[in-house]
Amino acid sequence: MDSFQVKTSKKVEVVDITSHVSSRIKSGSLCVLFTPHTTAAITINEFEPLIKDDMERFYSFIIREKNWKHNSIDSNAEAHLLSSLIKPSISIPIKDGSLALGTWQKILFIELDGPRNRTVQMQVIK
Amino acid sequence: MDSFQVKTSKKVEVVDITSHVSSRIKSGSLCVLFTPHTTAAITINEFEPLIKDDMERFYSFIIREKNWKHNSIDSNAEAHLLSSLIKPSISIPIKDGSLALGTWQKILFIELDGPRNRTVQMQVIK
Amino acid sequence: MDSFQVKTSKKVEVVDITSHVSSRIKSGSLCVLFTPHTTAAITINEFEPLIKDDMERFYSFIIREKNWKHNSIDSNAEAHLLSSLIKPSISIPIKDGSLALGTWQKILFIELDGPRNRTVQMQVIK
Repeated sequence: MDSFQVKTSKKVEVVDITSHVSSRIKSGSLCVLFTPHTTAAITINEFEPLIKDDMERFYSFIIREKNWKHNSIDSNAEAHLLSSLIKPSISIPIKDGSLALGTWQKILFIELDGPRNRTVQMQVIK
Repeated sequence: MDSFQVKTSKKVEVVDITSHVSSRIKSGSLCVLFTPHTTAAITINEFEPLIKDDMERFYSFIIREKNWKHNSIDSNAEAHLLSSLIKPSISIPIKDGSLALGTWQKILFIELDGPRNRTVQMQVIK
Repeated sequence: MDSFQVKTSKKVEVVDITSHVSSRIKSGSLCVLFTPHTTAAITINEFEPLIKDDMERFYSFIIREKNWKHNSIDSNAEAHLLSSLIKPSISIPIKDGSLALGTWQKILFIELDGPRNRTVQMQVIK
């Protein structure tokens, strides 16, 4: 298993981690990414600046109701809820030594309770 | 890696792709499906006509707010947002040469910006 | 492929299944969990009592609109919709014979139409 770090700078932030992953792929059939945090997630989409802003706003917008009980502990219930919905893992096929991503697809780390230093774990299946 | 095409006919459409996948499975331990698009997704659920209609309405309903910035570029921000939430990939165990799906489970391609011709990639892990 | 049972006691209930999974892991590179039901899901998050309550409320809250067509058949359209959104599968890397979960991460079975007896299937990839 390999891993790398992601440094985030905002409360809710979408970060393009594609090059961190693709530079570590040499061979194999499947790349599984997994972030070991409960207030972050991993997904795939375009990383155009306006859709990046829209994603950050969308993830905030899904959670409008504010009286979550967990906020009596550490004020990040929304981050846990979205992480449980989007999930911390994604699997991407590998073809001829490269990630089989589409033209517009980027691998996106979703920070939901930043800024923080985060870890992404990578398992390449033969 | 194998792949097949899906032709969609509506803006938001849930398409049952189970037979495309199951007919290609002969052996292995895991089937990973991945669609290389940023305005579509893959999930699993029942494919009864009324829940199909409900799913298509539900995915539209999650995105009620309309002033997404990316719509100034190509009017499909909602499709990107839902694709980032539902995600383009699903992993299904294989048992004795067949997909280990439950009685009511079908593999569903979710078109979010159709109609289009779409690709689904399939990686079977030994 | 291995499997185990989960007994749920409420309509919407988040159940910690981590120990069921971790006790079955001896070696391998990847653990894929898959529940063969269309009104349940699997995710990963913290399992602190207040966030558990918040998750159960959150999943109910996403589906506020009640006039789903499928409810004319068996009154569980909301469960199908959420299951299609959260999805029935999660993949977790294995490192040195153990699940590579973070400090606060627990594997969570999400019952959306309980109480029921549910199955979780486990495939460990070499």
